[in-house]
Amino acid sequence: MTAIAYVNGKFTPAGEAGVSIFDRGFLFGDGVYEVAAVLDGKLVDNDAHMARLGGSLREIMLASPEPLDRIRAIQAELIARNDLQEGLVYLQITRGAAPTRDFGFPPDTIPTLVMFTQAKNIINSPTVVAGIAVKTLPDIRWARRDIKSTSLLAQVLAKQAALAEGCQEAWMIDSDGAVTEGASSTAFIITKQATIVTRPNSTSVLPGCTGKAVVALAERRSLRIERRAFSVAEALDAAEAFLTSATTFVLPVVAIDGSPVGQGVPGEMTRLLRQLYIEAARATAT
Amino acid sequence: MTAIAYVNGKFTPAGEAGVSIFDRGFLFGDGVYEVAAVLDGKLVDNDAHMARLGGSLREIMLASPEPLDRIRAIQAELIARNDLQEGLVYLQITRGAAPTRDFGFPPDTIPTLVMFTQAKNIINSPTVVAGIAVKTLPDIRWARRDIKSTSLLAQVLAKQAALAEGCQEAWMIDSDGAVTEGASSTAFIITKQATIVTRPNSTSVLPGCTGKAVVALAERRSLRIERRAFSVAEALDAAEAFLTSATTFVLPVVAIDGSPVGQGVPGEMTRLLRQLYIEAARATAT
Repeated sequence: MTAIAYVNGKFTPAGEAGVSIFDRGFLFGDGVYEVAAVLDGKLVDNDAHMARLGGSLREIMLASPEPLDRIRAIQAELIARNDLQEGLVYLQITRGAAPTRDFGFPPDTIPTLVMFTQAKNIINSPTVVAGIAVKTLPDIRWARRDIKSTSLLAQVLAKQAALAEGCQEAWMIDSDGAVTEGASSTAFIITKQATIVTRPNSTSVLPGCTGKAVVALAERRSLRIERRAFSVAEALDAAEAFLTSATTFVLPVVAIDGSPVGQGVPGEMTRLLRQLYIEAARATAT
Repeated sequence: MTAIAYVNGKFTPAGEAGVSIFDRGFLFGDGVYEVAAVLDGKLVDNDAHMARLGGSLREIMLASPEPLDRIRAIQAELIARNDLQEGLVYLQITRGAAPTRDFGFPPDTIPTLVMFTQAKNIINSPTVVAGIAVKTLPDIRWARRDIKSTSLLAQVLAKQAALAEGCQEAWMIDSDGAVTEGASSTAFIITKQATIVTRPNSTSVLPGCTGKAVVALAERRSLRIERRAFSVAEALDAAEAFLTSATTFVLPVVAIDGSPVGQGVPGEMTRLLRQLYIEAARATAT
């Protein structure tokens, strides 16, 4: 089956889907994006992703080329056309293609909307059983990490540095020694007193949709949550650690910079939170 | 005449020139670029731009899809095909289009090389006579500003904020109160003691090719140069201020945040440095 993508009003074979070289997404990283998981052919937590998309667009002063409801309809059609059962829908909105390259906003361009799907084994990922290893490195990103922009080179280099050392994710460390987040995920620890710790939202981190949902599920179970920054030392002294992201859900972190977290195997509470999230995702997917 | 661009080995009408939506330049801002001026149909300071391109590629661990000498030949052919007398050649290299979107480097992609030209009135720009107004704002960019990457959203937003207030450039201010550089230019002041001051190269700023050439010309004239950071207060107390960039050469800065610099008109030394640079550019263009 040929994969089908969506570009500015047209469904097109993904292999032929293109944008102008003058698109500001290509020339300036001048765009924002969202990734929503697909389970059983339905979108997971899509309201949260659409809300965050609206926020990112506002922050970079970009109007969506389509109402968000129309974007939802395109997501659904793309899932159907690709017969996607499990994976993700990616969407990106850029400031469009201007005839002249200038840093300032062009006056009359139509924003670009690109969408595609990717099949992915989310539920039975092998990383769930083994857990993943994390490498820490300085967080060298810009000061507006709350905007989900496509100017992602810092995250690309961080992830690659982690992969090069046999790790699956990078945890980025701010100048004050605290973990901000993963290159493409939200960071959590669970203390020996069974308190779930994750950083509050701010301009220092992306407000994670999956992390927010996991915290809500934990609260409903009356688990203890602390919204605060934590250090690598605290993470290494924790009982468990995990990360959340739209397309991995909840993944156990079993090692940081080569040192084990807790027993060095996926923890019980992490397993529970993953199970709770999967159940909620299936129940609420749309 | 139809503008001609270059994309991955082919010369093509600019209006039809495109890249895959899976190009990492589009999805991740995972690429680097250079802009060289064209005067009298020839490239200005191109050795410096090629050297900086090589450095940017090394820093993001990306191999050029073509030897730099071949890139020079394409620049020349593009100038000829577009019959360009005065303006610029833009070139961008990205990590190419991978079948799956993942943050880490894809294993086997061929990097993308895109080039195009733009006509521009560099010598007789009206901003030379009037001088330009600058708006200051916090420098919120990442920590590797020495890499000329296309992850440029911070610069886009800075420039737009300046334009929105009737200024033509943004000067970005670091947390220590010093000016780093312009959104797309290098910042200079000339003190009342006639000393030219500009920031030394570091990871805090892009190493400007034009700025470097201007400093060399000033040194040859035995003008005093200080390579150090300066504050906005010092700039407002200076005799003159100016900026340099590949496609504006040397431009007088006559106001900062609405306050005049010096007499509020283009300064004599700035005019001299611009003249020296234009003469050198014409003499050495290739």
